[in-house]
Amino acid sequence: MVNPPLITLTTDFGTSSPYVAVMKGVIYTICPEARIVDLSHTIRPQDVRQAAYFLATAVPYFPVGTIHVCVVDPGVGTDRAALYTGVDGQHLVGPDNGLFTLLWRQARQPPPVIRTLTERRFWRPVVSATFHGRDVFAPVAAHLARGLPPAELGPLHTQPVQLALPTAVCDAQTCSGEIQFIDDFGNLITNIPAAEVSQLPAWVVIGNREPLHLPWVRTYGDAPVGTLVCLFSSDGFLEIAQVQGNAARRLQVHVGEPVRLSITRPA
Amino acid sequence: MVNPPLITLTTDFGTSSPYVAVMKGVIYTICPEARIVDLSHTIRPQDVRQAAYFLATAVPYFPVGTIHVCVVDPGVGTDRAALYTGVDGQHLVGPDNGLFTLLWRQARQPPPVIRTLTERRFWRPVVSATFHGRDVFAPVAAHLARGLPPAELGPLHTQPVQLALPTAVCDAQTCSGEIQFIDDFGNLITNIPAAEVSQLPAWVVIGNREPLHLPWVRTYGDAPVGTLVCLFSSDGFLEIAQVQGNAARRLQVHVGEPVRLSITRPA
Amino acid sequence: MVNPPLITLTTDFGTSSPYVAVMKGVIYTICPEARIVDLSHTIRPQDVRQAAYFLATAVPYFPVGTIHVCVVDPGVGTDRAALYTGVDGQHLVGPDNGLFTLLWRQARQPPPVIRTLTERRFWRPVVSATFHGRDVFAPVAAHLARGLPPAELGPLHTQPVQLALPTAVCDAQTCSGEIQFIDDFGNLITNIPAAEVSQLPAWVVIGNREPLHLPWVRTYGDAPVGTLVCLFSSDGFLEIAQVQGNAARRLQVHVGEPVRLSITRPA
Repeated sequence: MVNPPLITLTTDFGTSSPYVAVMKGVIYTICPEARIVDLSHTIRPQDVRQAAYFLATAVPYFPVGTIHVCVVDPGVGTDRAALYTGVDGQHLVGPDNGLFTLLWRQARQPPPVIRTLTERRFWRPVVSATFHGRDVFAPVAAHLARGLPPAELGPLHTQPVQLALPTAVCDAQTCSGEIQFIDDFGNLITNIPAAEVSQLPAWVVIGNREPLHLPWVRTYGDAPVGTLVCLFSSDGFLEIAQVQGNAARRLQVHVGEPVRLSITRPA
Repeated sequence: MVNPPLITLTTDFGTSSPYVAVMKGVIYTICPEARIVDLSHTIRPQDVRQAAYFLATAVPYFPVGTIHVCVVDPGVGTDRAALYTGVDGQHLVGPDNGLFTLLWRQARQPPPVIRTLTERRFWRPVVSATFHGRDVFAPVAAHLARGLPPAELGPLHTQPVQLALPTAVCDAQTCSGEIQFIDDFGNLITNIPAAEVSQLPAWVVIGNREPLHLPWVRTYGDAPVGTLVCLFSSDGFLEIAQVQGNAARRLQVHVGEPVRLSITRPA
Repeated sequence: MVNPPLITLTTDFGTSSPYVAVMKGVIYTICPEARIVDLSHTIRPQDVRQAAYFLATAVPYFPVGTIHVCVVDPGVGTDRAALYTGVDGQHLVGPDNGLFTLLWRQARQPPPVIRTLTERRFWRPVVSATFHGRDVFAPVAAHLARGLPPAELGPLHTQPVQLALPTAVCDAQTCSGEIQFIDDFGNLITNIPAAEVSQLPAWVVIGNREPLHLPWVRTYGDAPVGTLVCLFSSDGFLEIAQVQGNAARRLQVHVGEPVRLSITRPA
């Protein structure tokens, strides 16, 4: 027996509003056999960068052929394009605002396929100006789940919007990057790749705060409760954490702040 | 192959408490093939009005035959009735406290069917005084999912509790209504129907605040970030929003506050 | 037709982070026919006690044969063991930190089976030091869902970590226990069993606050809005609630505070 198709949902809609429920209803109506999987509905409102990180981290773990609906869409109803993209066997739909930047960067061969959604016959008959999750992305995903070939959705697109996310710069003594994500525990995930970092006690400067001299640990439990530590995040970056605490709250750090890691005390 | 039945859940239970999980367990035990769909568990505690709006907005998008369990129930265990209602092909169960008011108002022909749940053989054997979600509504929904005809649940009911929700009053110059919902973005959804409103720059008075002269836009991205705007909500009402911001927080507005829209400056 | 296997998830990961989504992807990749059920992802960070209460309350309602993945794991990556346990027909996997304490205490015959997860062939090939939800527990659950006998996972374990959770002590006049859970409504669930309590108006002392003389009610709606009341919780304990309000916020109570219930006014 073929397993029913999987459609995941990632939005900034929150769960007190009916918007996510509406999208689920639209999908089940078009593709009654679908299995809908909530990934997150608490992406920070309009935070395309957080969504891009979220998708790049989570999507690759899904079975090839999974369909992902991604709606963090401050430009809804303007002339921004709507996209389909196929990356490493995953199918995604969402607005053309950079949501897929990090997925595209980390794609293997063959390169990602990108299409603009122009074929209105796969949308709801009336399309609002403010809710393309309901009117465009959910129905398109449901049609894909029913077996529609992506090529039917619209023409190839070669100039998608990309977020200007910096990559870390490292030399023998220092790595300069930034905070790319803060998780629900308050752990700070930088964009400094594990491969670039020696696991020595390190001086860390976040923004223009005082330098911190942090021990390097394998895991949280390797230092006493309350300690600030450096470790490798589970997705392979330098992470700064407070053992059983919230480093983001303690240090008052925000996404995008620069981080500099060095072996010797900064001047 | 027939698709397994869909049962949706809408509650004010929160997700840190085991109550929703318990209901899921009860449903799967009675109807192992069910597919359970979370709509919301973060309805504000005891806020029957928010739940009524939520259901009226979301439920109509589901496939005919979907079963919806709705538990926002401050009167649990008192002599309030428990209801089944069939509206436009959707099946709902929940307390008789007005939860279904707006769904009934917008129902098409034939009119809604309403029954009181009296047949205890479809409940859990022991019924607590404080958790009818577990003991009455989840099991009844699971039996419906197994094919039980609604008429078996109990007798017809003709005097259900209804919320006294006002409708907007409009003339050529002015519309008077109220805020009926505030979404997770802080957008203010009024009860003033789009059909009643000309899309001109408008004076808006919320409660007894200063009149605001707001531009009318098609969508959020049509005005600069931070602007307060008027537009049509995706469900067809006058909406007041702050572009990429939170209008509710900025204006300190609550559900139920009166809204007056006029073309000329109010005296 | 056999129903597809059920796998539930209970974590403290929050929903703004990609961790839960990653676990879902891992499970669907190994067992594409699984049905994943979210129980909670908002267990308070590292709060093993809350998770133990949550699991003991929710898990017994699920169909026999359900698989439960439980990840509240401050000791991840240290030498703490990883466990499988079979309790009353339910299968659970999670860290050896006391998560299952209350489930084991309330188990019927036969006694629980406990195994350490040692067979790495059922894990992901590379195991991180900080995310065993992804690398150990999700894959093991998915293999169980595919029919793997638990005995394949590793050897029996007889000395699991148990939380030192006190039981209430009662005599004819007084019951002494503590607050074991505070739900999303702010209702205070004690560990004083209903069977020990007469339903008379009672004096209640929480911590070293002033004694409260509380009416005993069957359900919330039996007293005016705002009243503090005693009642039986839906899972069979003494509960202290504020009608349509938040008792925890009003009284500023935390889990673990002592509670003393007496019929006569305390000295």
